[in-house]
Amino acid sequence: MSREALVFYSPVDSSAAWREALTAELPDLDFRVDPEVGDPADIRYALVWLPPRGFFARFPNLQLVTNLGAGVDALLGRDDLVPVRFSRLNDPGMTAMMTSYVVFAVTRYARDIPVFERAKRRGVWDYVHPRPLADIKVAVLGLGELGAPAARALAGMGYTVTGWSRSPKDIPGVASETGREGLERVLADNEIIVSLLPLTPDLRGILGAREFARMPKGAKFINASRGAVVDEAALIGALRSGQVAEATLDVFETEPLPPDHPFWTLDNVLITPHLASITVPKLAARDVAQSIRRMRQGLAPLHEVDPARGY
Amino acid sequence: MSREALVFYSPVDSSAAWREALTAELPDLDFRVDPEVGDPADIRYALVWLPPRGFFARFPNLQLVTNLGAGVDALLGRDDLVPVRFSRLNDPGMTAMMTSYVVFAVTRYARDIPVFERAKRRGVWDYVHPRPLADIKVAVLGLGELGAPAARALAGMGYTVTGWSRSPKDIPGVASETGREGLERVLADNEIIVSLLPLTPDLRGILGAREFARMPKGAKFINASRGAVVDEAALIGALRSGQVAEATLDVFETEPLPPDHPFWTLDNVLITPHLASITVPKLAARDVAQSIRRMRQGLAPLHEVDPARGY
Repeated sequence: MSREALVFYSPVDSSAAWREALTAELPDLDFRVDPEVGDPADIRYALVWLPPRGFFARFPNLQLVTNLGAGVDALLGRDDLVPVRFSRLNDPGMTAMMTSYVVFAVTRYARDIPVFERAKRRGVWDYVHPRPLADIKVAVLGLGELGAPAARALAGMGYTVTGWSRSPKDIPGVASETGREGLERVLADNEIIVSLLPLTPDLRGILGAREFARMPKGAKFINASRGAVVDEAALIGALRSGQVAEATLDVFETEPLPPDHPFWTLDNVLITPHLASITVPKLAARDVAQSIRRMRQGLAPLHEVDPARGY
Repeated sequence: MSREALVFYSPVDSSAAWREALTAELPDLDFRVDPEVGDPADIRYALVWLPPRGFFARFPNLQLVTNLGAGVDALLGRDDLVPVRFSRLNDPGMTAMMTSYVVFAVTRYARDIPVFERAKRRGVWDYVHPRPLADIKVAVLGLGELGAPAARALAGMGYTVTGWSRSPKDIPGVASETGREGLERVLADNEIIVSLLPLTPDLRGILGAREFARMPKGAKFINASRGAVVDEAALIGALRSGQVAEATLDVFETEPLPPDHPFWTLDNVLITPHLASITVPKLAARDVAQSIRRMRQGLAPLHEVDPARGY
């Protein structure tokens, strides 16, 4: 009888935490951590984050590759993929993390906190009368597995929320816009703009000089998806002119953000080191295990993604 | 036929906004703004924030005083009250504002934002692996009209939440503690402590040196209720020693916070100028109008408060 094993590879995730979480779900699973893979012919499943070039071709019986993160662009954009099935994580913990980050960043602007941070440094009691949350219009660009819950949470708090996505979405309390014309409207009509856009080929650099100019003067911008959906030079220009008054950035074209990058010196930028959303193995393991069970039965995995489509 | 009028007094709220909101609900209401009160005998209702001493005694037919804010301590603690009925606002807008403030302040700590603010000033990419929200224990002291919704919202986001209140409360997802022993447990067991306590006589100074020492080393403290529930000297000591690592303070013993106050110079304190929760007339007017309708019918007003009890 041939063996059936999973190979784990990640430069950042804990293999011990994943082994524990996944074997709790599938006690019979043969969990192997690269490079200790044994006979490569045993490997049916790969659970990976940024594996080295040529990784997949090493396993002749590979059937399923699961990406250890919500953003599958780094996986699906590779030129060394093999013809197997691909899936992404569905991690309720990751969703809660992203929602908390977006709620934090939006509310920081809605409640004028940067004004008070600056007043504190000057030692000044600078009263700004708050506006009701319903008067504050927030756009969420991208309504996928992370964007849709974030938009729903913002609407639930009382903000006036519009979402922009490839196809129309029906999220309670969230207006839906699509297409280029929809994007133009969304950019012009909202004072806080959140990017949760996946980095598909057609979304690379979608937020450039023209888009920042389209936003209302003094807009606030939050990017918690991928740095490369933004033209960083254009954003820096908009932040210097005040066209974009404030930005919260978790992701960058180059990470870690280089020490001489202008973002570090802009007083109106809050930088976090790409951690808006992280995987929680205990919560994410359930669907990974279920996908393996389904593959064993000849069914499609959960949360399948398509390299041709990019998501 | 005798006239029936309402008198409005506030040094901060907009009489125009209140006139518009309240006469939309009660078109027949005679809305008068102090000092243009006409015949004082016409005044049946008072809608006030911090009126001058002797204000109430001017109106011989006064029946109901409604406080223009959630915190009724400044009203009920006066020694110039007259024997009428008192009520507080129930303002869904105010509740949403307070919840947004608390969610912001808690999440700022839960997501390690002060670490990244400091890293930004040094120009350093300082990665701190985030913790799942369920691993972060938050206490809400005070589960009244503002505290209960805030606690519920925090639990809904995924935090592990315990509330402390005079009587046990049944809030989904929120553990309930009461009494002095309960307070000791709550202080010791939670790393983020939020005060939404009303300033009743027995809660004045309830958070002092002993209570800050009881918190886990490096606790974060948020006060969005009343400055005087805290012994400020004790809090400053705890913030200087690191026993309390961070604080977000919206309220102070003396407001505006004096320019030479030590809080201004503490790097680990975020100061906001008493605006965590403000009244939104459009949303608050409904229950004020309903209380007037009820008084006309000889019924008790909504949201009645008792000077003897203090809330």
